[in-house]
Amino acid sequence: MKKITTLLLSLLASSVLAQNSDSVAIRRIYNEALANGKSYEWLRHLTKQIGPRLSGSEGAQKAVDWTKQVMEQQGFDRVFLQEVMVPHWVRGAKEEAYIHSGSKKTTVPIAALGGSVATNPKGVEAQVIEVKSFPELRALGTEKVKGKIVFFNRPMDPTKLNTFDAYGGAVDQRANGATEAAKLGAVGAIVRSMSNRHDDQPHTGGTRYGTGVPLIPTAAISTNGADLLSKSLTENPSLTFYFKQNCETLPDAKSYNVVGEIKGSEKPDEIIVIGGHLDSWDLAEGAHDDGSGCVQSIEVLRIMKALGIKPKRTLRAVMFMNEENGLRGGIKYADLAKQNNEKTIAAIESDEGGFTPRGFGIVGKPEERAKAMRWAPLLAPYGLTDIGPGSGGADIGPLAQTGTVLFGFKPDSQRYFDYHHTPVDRFEAVSQRELELGAASMAALTYLLDQYGL
Amino acid sequence: MKKITTLLLSLLASSVLAQNSDSVAIRRIYNEALANGKSYEWLRHLTKQIGPRLSGSEGAQKAVDWTKQVMEQQGFDRVFLQEVMVPHWVRGAKEEAYIHSGSKKTTVPIAALGGSVATNPKGVEAQVIEVKSFPELRALGTEKVKGKIVFFNRPMDPTKLNTFDAYGGAVDQRANGATEAAKLGAVGAIVRSMSNRHDDQPHTGGTRYGTGVPLIPTAAISTNGADLLSKSLTENPSLTFYFKQNCETLPDAKSYNVVGEIKGSEKPDEIIVIGGHLDSWDLAEGAHDDGSGCVQSIEVLRIMKALGIKPKRTLRAVMFMNEENGLRGGIKYADLAKQNNEKTIAAIESDEGGFTPRGFGIVGKPEERAKAMRWAPLLAPYGLTDIGPGSGGADIGPLAQTGTVLFGFKPDSQRYFDYHHTPVDRFEAVSQRELELGAASMAALTYLLDQYGL
Repeated sequence: MKKITTLLLSLLASSVLAQNSDSVAIRRIYNEALANGKSYEWLRHLTKQIGPRLSGSEGAQKAVDWTKQVMEQQGFDRVFLQEVMVPHWVRGAKEEAYIHSGSKKTTVPIAALGGSVATNPKGVEAQVIEVKSFPELRALGTEKVKGKIVFFNRPMDPTKLNTFDAYGGAVDQRANGATEAAKLGAVGAIVRSMSNRHDDQPHTGGTRYGTGVPLIPTAAISTNGADLLSKSLTENPSLTFYFKQNCETLPDAKSYNVVGEIKGSEKPDEIIVIGGHLDSWDLAEGAHDDGSGCVQSIEVLRIMKALGIKPKRTLRAVMFMNEENGLRGGIKYADLAKQNNEKTIAAIESDEGGFTPRGFGIVGKPEERAKAMRWAPLLAPYGLTDIGPGSGGADIGPLAQTGTVLFGFKPDSQRYFDYHHTPVDRFEAVSQRELELGAASMAALTYLLDQYGL
Repeated sequence: MKKITTLLLSLLASSVLAQNSDSVAIRRIYNEALANGKSYEWLRHLTKQIGPRLSGSEGAQKAVDWTKQVMEQQGFDRVFLQEVMVPHWVRGAKEEAYIHSGSKKTTVPIAALGGSVATNPKGVEAQVIEVKSFPELRALGTEKVKGKIVFFNRPMDPTKLNTFDAYGGAVDQRANGATEAAKLGAVGAIVRSMSNRHDDQPHTGGTRYGTGVPLIPTAAISTNGADLLSKSLTENPSLTFYFKQNCETLPDAKSYNVVGEIKGSEKPDEIIVIGGHLDSWDLAEGAHDDGSGCVQSIEVLRIMKALGIKPKRTLRAVMFMNEENGLRGGIKYADLAKQNNEKTIAAIESDEGGFTPRGFGIVGKPEERAKAMRWAPLLAPYGLTDIGPGSGGADIGPLAQTGTVLFGFKPDSQRYFDYHHTPVDRFEAVSQRELELGAASMAALTYLLDQYGL
């Protein structure tokens, strides 16, 4: 009995010691990020010097070259590209739109949705059918919809505490609105912007066309514009809406994921991925979406080197290409990992903005989640209190098929959709400290994953 | 035994029911704040229509009149003013400052500290002694300091996770720097701005003169300006610094706290105060500091009325006057409460900005804190996970003497000192959702305090 007690006490003591040394290491990680962080200046370059970087654009290629160079300069063990063919959609000349009621024409701000076809060169003008949902649209039937422009005007629900839940409850209109409208003979689809704010920014974003359905032009209208159009329709249901857009889809273009690696000292074959996506929408500097995630991922590896932490496992910072309109980079990464028989034990993605950290969502088996959640007391002092089942991230999603446990970094969500996919998603919208705390939070989790595996 | 078991089970059941109904009530409070909130539009008026409102200014008086009117329009049971005499300091014409090295004069941004005396009309120019602390200054002695300008250049510590801790570790320079410098014969004191950011905003704020010490002019210099001055001093230790400021302290002015009240239905003599301060620095719209706290406090009472919640106890929204440079309003409120034998069971203050909610700091006896902390599970789903001993707030501080339990609303601290006491503390720096979530958090705590007392 005495022996067992001694054994237990010694186990307990070593566990307490481990916790203490982990807690010291995590404190050092935060200090390094906050006092000597590089993520903010990197983000400044990516947004201000390079700027928008939609897949297939010159900006995207510059971002590939530059992040590769940054990681090489950091002296990571290996920096390499993964070639991937990506969709190449271009907006063309700026859109025009107005509400035409009686003799009055009121200009409203719109932005073509990514992947949309153009209108004909003179634009399209038609009467408007406003709906809040697909069932409501279908109930109207072809008779009422044919030849019209369908206006999808269901707002994001402001009472959802996490704005991503509100986004999830509204984004079907943007993704599938044009297809649903075209099925009933509509000639265009206008979608209320995905934002809780009332302002004049149209929020672009990806749309999809169903097969066997006419391709009709579709655009986002600013929330203020949507409110005005809705009000105008109650005053004059037979008003018309005019819009013109000049976008087109070019042949797929060659692009790349960018990967930087620190080789593991004990288990080099076990890989931990830390990533964000390098592409942004063409209208945005992509500061929160997702320049932040990219520079934070590089910063995680930089912090390890700066502190002299030699990881047991292999750490990879991955800049995924084409999250916004195709996810080709994420799919390619997972395909190559499978092809190369890589064992990716965990992947962390930051793609919810450079805001103050609140936690991590976990996708994995219950016992894997339970193991990660045992670390919660080490992370809580840093405001990371929201740790549990959740979503990982679009780019790392395909890795789940081969058993990788996914971690979605969760910053505070309140401001994300103020900026999302618009010109105000720019460097000035990012707080240095919030960005750095996010990088430190990802580095702390990386440290624990590396120390203990899953 | 069976009886006891039945009793326990029935107690447990009623406690579970109460928790359920509380959780429903709190959910309704958040929904009301997020879907029908008024705080953001009120803040727009207070900042954009009224603007800066330093004690004794026309803006302060307008803010008194307008918040009184708003609360009357909300139909609160009673709205009244509490007269209070306040310091009346004015900045005068904009300051000028430059670094004079050789034949080169480099202009730098400064702002006189509130309460400072003017320089003489031609300004003051002298050599500069840079120090990081008072001990370092004292060690230099009169010989080295006499006739010089002392430059206090200890930055806020970026590794402090809560920026208020970093502020607390640096603000002695602003509060007492001039006095400490004057004791050794200095002719002026220049203080590094209280901010983690590197930018060109000088952050004003209150300074104090000790008795029996010459009153020397003192000003804040922007963090970039401080870095430049420090660098210039290493290059040329005998450079001079010139500054001119034109501020003065006028006779005390008459002003007011503004109080709006909903009378309690069961225990009207037990009062719960919810407050912020109405004054701001003259350079700022005072959006985060502390327009947010004011409109949130009014919003708490509005939410109760809108939801048909009839409080048992008396709720008071208090707009305190003169937090920034005197605290006269907070002191006056507590004096009157004592004089009128009022029983203020709890007071909540919001004066850390309109940022996303993280918790409440509590000042009270251990058993009072324990009671409040039993509510933590009801508040955690709203991101209020940082609840425990802390600080209450400057304005409600004086109420502690008569046994009031103080609650300081704790929003996320990361961005507060980017804006604090500068022109960029303006309406545009406030997120509507963050502001509304803060109001809802305060209303949820108010609801629990009202239901259960302390």
